[in-house]
Amino acid sequence: MAEYNFIKACFCQPVDRVPVWLMRQAGRYLPEYRAVRAQGAGTFLDLCKDPQRSAEVSVQPIDILDVDAAIMFSDILTPIEPMGMALDFVPGPVFANPVRTSADVDALVVPENMAEAVPYVPQIIQRLRQQLEGRVPLIGFGGAPFTLACYMVEGKGSKDFAALKRMMYGDPELYRTLMEKVTEMDLRYLNMQIEAGAQTIQIFDTWGGLVSPTDFEKFVLPYTKKLIAGLNRKDIPVIYFVKGSGTMLELVKEAGSDVIGLDWHINLGKARDILGDDVAVQGNLDPSVLYAPQPYIEQEVQRILNENDDRPGFIFNLGHGITPSVDPANAIFMVDAVHRLSKK
Amino acid sequence: MAEYNFIKACFCQPVDRVPVWLMRQAGRYLPEYRAVRAQGAGTFLDLCKDPQRSAEVSVQPIDILDVDAAIMFSDILTPIEPMGMALDFVPGPVFANPVRTSADVDALVVPENMAEAVPYVPQIIQRLRQQLEGRVPLIGFGGAPFTLACYMVEGKGSKDFAALKRMMYGDPELYRTLMEKVTEMDLRYLNMQIEAGAQTIQIFDTWGGLVSPTDFEKFVLPYTKKLIAGLNRKDIPVIYFVKGSGTMLELVKEAGSDVIGLDWHINLGKARDILGDDVAVQGNLDPSVLYAPQPYIEQEVQRILNENDDRPGFIFNLGHGITPSVDPANAIFMVDAVHRLSKK
Repeated sequence: MAEYNFIKACFCQPVDRVPVWLMRQAGRYLPEYRAVRAQGAGTFLDLCKDPQRSAEVSVQPIDILDVDAAIMFSDILTPIEPMGMALDFVPGPVFANPVRTSADVDALVVPENMAEAVPYVPQIIQRLRQQLEGRVPLIGFGGAPFTLACYMVEGKGSKDFAALKRMMYGDPELYRTLMEKVTEMDLRYLNMQIEAGAQTIQIFDTWGGLVSPTDFEKFVLPYTKKLIAGLNRKDIPVIYFVKGSGTMLELVKEAGSDVIGLDWHINLGKARDILGDDVAVQGNLDPSVLYAPQPYIEQEVQRILNENDDRPGFIFNLGHGITPSVDPANAIFMVDAVHRLSKK
Repeated sequence: MAEYNFIKACFCQPVDRVPVWLMRQAGRYLPEYRAVRAQGAGTFLDLCKDPQRSAEVSVQPIDILDVDAAIMFSDILTPIEPMGMALDFVPGPVFANPVRTSADVDALVVPENMAEAVPYVPQIIQRLRQQLEGRVPLIGFGGAPFTLACYMVEGKGSKDFAALKRMMYGDPELYRTLMEKVTEMDLRYLNMQIEAGAQTIQIFDTWGGLVSPTDFEKFVLPYTKKLIAGLNRKDIPVIYFVKGSGTMLELVKEAGSDVIGLDWHINLGKARDILGDDVAVQGNLDPSVLYAPQPYIEQEVQRILNENDDRPGFIFNLGHGITPSVDPANAIFMVDAVHRLSKK
């Protein structure tokens, strides 16, 4: 594994050019993705559960964009289904039976064997490892316990996840019980991915930045910390991405990941100064910059490379997922610009 | 004016207790507001344009919550109508004819006389000053030029305001022309409010934190700076609130306001350390904490007061608008807790 620039960067080792991939790189902005998605009348969830097609869309960006890592196509909420929750996408995720009461929490199942609970996940990982033939490493992923709980309690996306907050503040004991179950499931789920062949794990905490730094420390961090500590990491790097965490990076670092994902709301140089040299960072181009003309994109890539200032432990990425209306030519251009401008 | 705790705090002068008000304090969480809103079949926009009823809902929180300032009930987008744009709320704001081309920008009107263009605004201000009888000062407000432009170009709310970004990056000259027109309108609008009797001006930059710090400096800050510099401030304090700006407070300070509004994503003590002693701050309780039991609310109020550590120049507020499903009893409790716990 040590020969991959991507893996070396995760461990703050020297690289000959900066590795780059894009969050949501297998997605709707690619006509090739839309073509696979259109095969049959299946839903988004059906695509997640079809190892053949989901592997196909996972590989597309490697060929099209020349990125330095593949990420399995899936959704952070799929492992919640076998906990006993009916999941649908309309198109946003919806759980028909949100977790609100003590009885709801008690009823949640933590499957012993996650490979049996979500068989399509190890299947896509094994298939992808074969198809990638070692060209780039494969990233597996999961939601952070807090972000998963947001959806489980609210039942859907929300501006402020009021139901989750009411439980968190009003019944901290019930919240703790829920979070421990979710964390245990998550741990089994991610270790199963490592077992199946994932070569990096990214933990998405999309809603972790929704709470104040004080509440992050109290209600979010302990569970991610426990999750990361429990992973069978061996030589597998772990990336922790908390959207909206630029004001509390010291806390994010305490979770113990090898790499910290940065959104675009903080300058990368400033973030690295705060975080220190012993942790790698991943980020942080504003996805909207991909709407810009290519000279502007190049200028922004150069600015971010300058901010990193040749420090080891840097993976270029967007600060959030690529958006559906981006012209793929601009994504291709951006990846090439990172490689070209950072080459030693 | 100097006798108000609120005004003193804006200018970093000593106070005998910390002043407090709530963003969106005249709003749907209050049954008294909903009762006025239900009078007749009028829309939200009709309420904004009815000085009698909008003054009534503006005064309600003074009586009900005992807050230290009133804010006129209005919407940041109302002054855009006389620029030649048809505004509707469905319930989010929608402009039927978004600004996209050079011809669209040229067609925008900057009214000479804003008091004639939006007569209901000076009318509500004059009416409120009479009804308040000097009990608390009256805050007028407007959107920051960037946030106004976001809606004007996109035509509605958006996750990433792609149309605005395409113009900003792709045709910076057109963007500049648009922003200069919006800034000039905004300046006339806010000076008209001061003329009519507003005793403080708050500038809302709801979307200013959507861009990277680099783009904020380039595309957002120059216009707010020009706006604030052009205000007939006399003894009128100016508050600048940029949601999501905790990672770039040094830049927000450059805009030149007397007070900087803080959301809850940064600890207040840390924000004050970054900003220094020569500017006041306003914030920053997570609005979701109002879903908590009262002992938790009290604990959070105390924590924020502790973070301020008796520094002059502090106005307590939420980090964003109060949400419709909050129990008014919790808002009343919070205001009282601030007064009680901060009393000298």
